[in-house]
Amino acid sequence: MILGKVIGTVWSTRKDENLVGMKFLIVKHLKLDYTEKDAFTVAVDSVGAGVGEVVLFAQGSSARQTKLTKNKPVDAVIMAIVDKLDVNGKPVKDE
Amino acid sequence: MILGKVIGTVWSTRKDENLVGMKFLIVKHLKLDYTEKDAFTVAVDSVGAGVGEVVLFAQGSSARQTKLTKNKPVDAVIMAIVDKLDVNGKPVKDE
Amino acid sequence: MILGKVIGTVWSTRKDENLVGMKFLIVKHLKLDYTEKDAFTVAVDSVGAGVGEVVLFAQGSSARQTKLTKNKPVDAVIMAIVDKLDVNGKPVKDE
Amino acid sequence: MILGKVIGTVWSTRKDENLVGMKFLIVKHLKLDYTEKDAFTVAVDSVGAGVGEVVLFAQGSSARQTKLTKNKPVDAVIMAIVDKLDVNGKPVKDE
Amino acid sequence: MILGKVIGTVWSTRKDENLVGMKFLIVKHLKLDYTEKDAFTVAVDSVGAGVGEVVLFAQGSSARQTKLTKNKPVDAVIMAIVDKLDVNGKPVKDE
Repeated sequence: MILGKVIGTVWSTRKDENLVGMKFLIVKHLKLDYTEKDAFTVAVDSVGAGVGEVVLFAQGSSARQTKLTKNKPVDAVIMAIVDKLDVNGKPVKDE
Repeated sequence: MILGKVIGTVWSTRKDENLVGMKFLIVKHLKLDYTEKDAFTVAVDSVGAGVGEVVLFAQGSSARQTKLTKNKPVDAVIMAIVDKLDVNGKPVKDE
Repeated sequence: MILGKVIGTVWSTRKDENLVGMKFLIVKHLKLDYTEKDAFTVAVDSVGAGVGEVVLFAQGSSARQTKLTKNKPVDAVIMAIVDKLDVNGKPVKDE
Repeated sequence: MILGKVIGTVWSTRKDENLVGMKFLIVKHLKLDYTEKDAFTVAVDSVGAGVGEVVLFAQGSSARQTKLTKNKPVDAVIMAIVDKLDVNGKPVKDE
Repeated sequence: MILGKVIGTVWSTRKDENLVGMKFLIVKHLKLDYTEKDAFTVAVDSVGAGVGEVVLFAQGSSARQTKLTKNKPVDAVIMAIVDKLDVNGKPVKDE
């Protein structure tokens, strides 16, 4: 999984019929100190994540293993909202 | 999913028999301010996207989860046409 | 899919028993002006592609969706030979 | 598989219901001399790996081929703890 | 598939129960002139490859399409030992 931060939303009306009702979130990839990398991924939200939250997302066929995304043409899903990170036994302070 | 912009078409007559009738579009990857990255992907169109439109495409086995692409040897599909992006609560102006 | 150009062949006699008879082609990745990138992929040919031809190849599980490659341990397949590219409404001249 | 070293843990309470009880470990990618690369992946632990241990992890659909991860939305799993590496016939000394 | 050269072995006793007896080889990625790139992948051997041999390996779900790796948590498999490469009609001399 990749660590990321939700920073926005992609709006789309013309899309595959099986995607109606899904929320497409823009997720910036994070370093371990919570700073943002340049890279971003558009991921479907399956856990009620909001803008500003730190999340994990899964990619590929694994992105279709939630109730919401099963058999759907999506290749990235947010499957966890992160409470905190411990690195080398110490919590990483959020920015 | 990856954010992209359709900039062209790949024409092919000699191809796998299951690909007849599919449209192969050239999709430049986009940054969040709609400027184009160098990278591009050739993706099958499943939503009627045209040149100049901003889209999302899905890759890998997820690209085969549309009616059009099921069981076909394609690894990228355009599954949504983007209306707009919101980043940090504000709409991103299209170029 | 990735745009590429066939530049050679990989010969192998000791290989998985299900791969006997398959042709492993060396495909250089191309930019949109037909110049070659550094990257290359070894892909199975399913459409009769020859050295010098511009092709599309599919990767991952999608590479196993041709008759030839079904259930075989291959992760890249040439599924189309390219006639021409149109970018922004104009054909790209081949080099 | 990718060679890595477990350096920490991701804690999450709000997550897909099928992920309850799984341990999400932060795995830094390693070079062959055991020095850490910048890249890291968050992987589910299926073998009892702890912080400081050198491991292998598998990605994509292969990450769902353990008892723990079957049909779960996870795309990386630690499936082996590394005892040692031999390169060109000689063991690599751990740092 | 990726062209590589076997340069070593990863030893592991604590691993997923389905991986017992498998050989994990360290495969350096190769350029087309047989020089080694920095990148390496750990791949399961399904064809009796040894240190020093040039090989092809397949990744992702395709790595599970050999008898040895079926339904196992491995995402890279050596499926061919390379005899020689032809580039632009001429054999590439091995280093």
